[in-house]
Amino acid sequence: MTIAVYAGTFDPVTNGHLDIAVRAAGLFDKLYVAVAQETGKNTLFSLEERVQLIRQELSGVANIEVVSFDGLLVDFAHKIGANTIVRGLRAVSDFDIELQMALMNKEMAADLETVFLPTSPQYLFISSSIIKNVASLQGDISRLVPERVLLALEKKLSQI
Amino acid sequence: MTIAVYAGTFDPVTNGHLDIAVRAAGLFDKLYVAVAQETGKNTLFSLEERVQLIRQELSGVANIEVVSFDGLLVDFAHKIGANTIVRGLRAVSDFDIELQMALMNKEMAADLETVFLPTSPQYLFISSSIIKNVASLQGDISRLVPERVLLALEKKLSQI
Amino acid sequence: MTIAVYAGTFDPVTNGHLDIAVRAAGLFDKLYVAVAQETGKNTLFSLEERVQLIRQELSGVANIEVVSFDGLLVDFAHKIGANTIVRGLRAVSDFDIELQMALMNKEMAADLETVFLPTSPQYLFISSSIIKNVASLQGDISRLVPERVLLALEKKLSQI
Amino acid sequence: MTIAVYAGTFDPVTNGHLDIAVRAAGLFDKLYVAVAQETGKNTLFSLEERVQLIRQELSGVANIEVVSFDGLLVDFAHKIGANTIVRGLRAVSDFDIELQMALMNKEMAADLETVFLPTSPQYLFISSSIIKNVASLQGDISRLVPERVLLALEKKLSQI
Amino acid sequence: MTIAVYAGTFDPVTNGHLDIAVRAAGLFDKLYVAVAQETGKNTLFSLEERVQLIRQELSGVANIEVVSFDGLLVDFAHKIGANTIVRGLRAVSDFDIELQMALMNKEMAADLETVFLPTSPQYLFISSSIIKNVASLQGDISRLVPERVLLALEKKLSQI
Amino acid sequence: MTIAVYAGTFDPVTNGHLDIAVRAAGLFDKLYVAVAQETGKNTLFSLEERVQLIRQELSGVANIEVVSFDGLLVDFAHKIGANTIVRGLRAVSDFDIELQMALMNKEMAADLETVFLPTSPQYLFISSSIIKNVASLQGDISRLVPERVLLALEKKLSQI
Repeated sequence: MTIAVYAGTFDPVTNGHLDIAVRAAGLFDKLYVAVAQETGKNTLFSLEERVQLIRQELSGVANIEVVSFDGLLVDFAHKIGANTIVRGLRAVSDFDIELQMALMNKEMAADLETVFLPTSPQYLFISSSIIKNVASLQGDISRLVPERVLLALEKKLSQI
Repeated sequence: MTIAVYAGTFDPVTNGHLDIAVRAAGLFDKLYVAVAQETGKNTLFSLEERVQLIRQELSGVANIEVVSFDGLLVDFAHKIGANTIVRGLRAVSDFDIELQMALMNKEMAADLETVFLPTSPQYLFISSSIIKNVASLQGDISRLVPERVLLALEKKLSQI
Repeated sequence: MTIAVYAGTFDPVTNGHLDIAVRAAGLFDKLYVAVAQETGKNTLFSLEERVQLIRQELSGVANIEVVSFDGLLVDFAHKIGANTIVRGLRAVSDFDIELQMALMNKEMAADLETVFLPTSPQYLFISSSIIKNVASLQGDISRLVPERVLLALEKKLSQI
Repeated sequence: MTIAVYAGTFDPVTNGHLDIAVRAAGLFDKLYVAVAQETGKNTLFSLEERVQLIRQELSGVANIEVVSFDGLLVDFAHKIGANTIVRGLRAVSDFDIELQMALMNKEMAADLETVFLPTSPQYLFISSSIIKNVASLQGDISRLVPERVLLALEKKLSQI
Repeated sequence: MTIAVYAGTFDPVTNGHLDIAVRAAGLFDKLYVAVAQETGKNTLFSLEERVQLIRQELSGVANIEVVSFDGLLVDFAHKIGANTIVRGLRAVSDFDIELQMALMNKEMAADLETVFLPTSPQYLFISSSIIKNVASLQGDISRLVPERVLLALEKKLSQI
Repeated sequence: MTIAVYAGTFDPVTNGHLDIAVRAAGLFDKLYVAVAQETGKNTLFSLEERVQLIRQELSGVANIEVVSFDGLLVDFAHKIGANTIVRGLRAVSDFDIELQMALMNKEMAADLETVFLPTSPQYLFISSSIIKNVASLQGDISRLVPERVLLALEKKLSQI
């Protein structure tokens, strides 16, 4: 039985993230979507908000479980019995950093594999950062995030 | 009639920026050089200083107009009637980010094209960041920025 | 007046080529689509076939003229009075080769600019080579080339 | 149940290929290692030899089956009931071509996912081409291919 | 006589840095390992600590001298009579930035060459940043840094 | 004493090659410029012609010796007592292939280092292939190759 984990900050989740999660869920027996507590940098949304936003979008996929985690991903993967780390790949600069992380994770946990899924073409240009930046400048992101995320972003940004 | 906009922070303008602007002005009927107010990060020069430094260098090119803007570039482009965004390309890591921005802008404004001009070989290594870094360490940048920018940098850095 | 030239082997033209051509035609006063005689390597379609296939797809765009050429592109550009070379950009390995060609062309003809247009996301994976390869293996390419090209490919490949 | 296919020319199989195959077999219920008949270019080893060389190395992995195939990989994947294509990733130029192939395969068969496994660091520089080239010049490749492949290469190259 | 300088922040030194230093020392008559005072960003270890950590690891290499420096590397290179700057190369995004720095240094000091050594495969994924990040999350980095650095990291991180 | 070898096909030598050779000669006690017999692909110039063309350009550099070689570069390096392989780097796709070759050579000969010198900006776009291609189409390459190479190319191409 293959248990996979797809981790990220998801601040907030985008249609690109959801695309990877749903496709990965089709490949493995179980997929944990793991939201990083991410103490190192400021997030726009709290951990609870980030978990909730992604959970309500993926509640319809039976073998996906949305969880939060703290510390090293490889430690968390071991704890939940995962043997695979799933990552989405968009561009060449992604690839460099992702390869570095995959090799580092392999060094720390030889029993864990990292598999990369290529991002669908229509989401190649989306990242949470660019979404937040464009939204803060009143740009139209309605095709790039789920409607509930759109509303949450508008509400959050109006409070700043 | 093709109206193009070449936007950036220009903190400060370099010979590489001027090279792109002058070459782009030769391709389009009108070129707006648009200096971003850039509220998100600290700049060494104020918006007014950045506009003035680039304006005096480009005053001899008839179809160039130097302006400042705030908010989304695609919104500004629409306001001034531009149908083209001009970008300079230096390196592969530029290319990734630039392609992401171009696709995002296309998503927000399907009527706007982004065109890339390759940087001239002698300016491939110049960026405003590296210029400021080297200048702050008393390195010789006299062949990389116009003389007025050199003087402005010296004056500004002596005040820090 | 800006006259641009978009050159290639077009063996055969794909929807990706047509996308670049139509978008470029919107930026310049006149766009020559220049089909290379390409004596160096074997083509599946003859020069006449390649010109005809692309011409019939672009006949509806008033400021596009489809022509063939031989020899150096910069010499041809001078002959037709073009001051701009248009190139489509798909990927990083494209970028390297394209930058090399653009700098070489600039070396040979300092008055000619090369501008790059990013390929639309849905065509990022298309090239004439991959189209021919997939078609020869009976793969479905109907969304990737115009219908007349599809028919021409089927006919041509059945003759081999 | 996830059935994956790892396809290639394997002319001949290297330790890098075997590393990917064994790791992929740990992720999926069944892994087909599919040797391409590859009519388009000359191979050093015949299809039968390539199949045999890889089969004897992987015979100890219960859920791996080595097969040969002809035509489009997506058609073969459908025939054997696979829902995943496995690819190894070594370098950036790999990534460009691999992403192009993955998107093309997705276009032809939306139900098939491509997943990439990063090559282990010690095999980053190995390819069948470089192995053949070095072997033909009497270089030492004993740590890069299985012993049976080493012997097969020596025998084959002595016959040329 | 060729005198080379290998500069960095070394916060802290890793096995990857040591690998480059030792290999470079074999190529040149004298190698200065130059620890940057690096006033621009916060370091985990003080300049003195960084110098000491790297010095004790390289004390056994006769033609290496560990020093600290401030200001432009090219000025420091001139001061110590170096004619070569040594850099390690790991990945493509390294390459872009490194090439930019090498060309900028050449612009400032035409008499200085930059030479790049490829990182050994087993260290491709190591950087001081990732080491600090993993160590702060209690990950195992014992194969990636010398033992004294491991102890220094544990001590330092327990004090935060 | 550091003996380095700079190998290539040099079909024909370009100003970019000469730039690397002269700069490398300044870094090492002795530099062999090694012209590959290159049995695998067709060259425009014979081995003797390639050696002669490069030798006459570099005869003024005291510590350079131009030689030809056959077989593996690492074997040749051992034979002449070289401990360093010099390579020029132009672009990212170069980097991938060069890194692969450097790691392969390290695998075959652990005592040999590969060092990369970045190409000077004005030669970033030059390769022997593009030089031959442009020359065959009567393009102006007079600033890209030495005069004797220009004449040799004209003579050779007029005979085809």
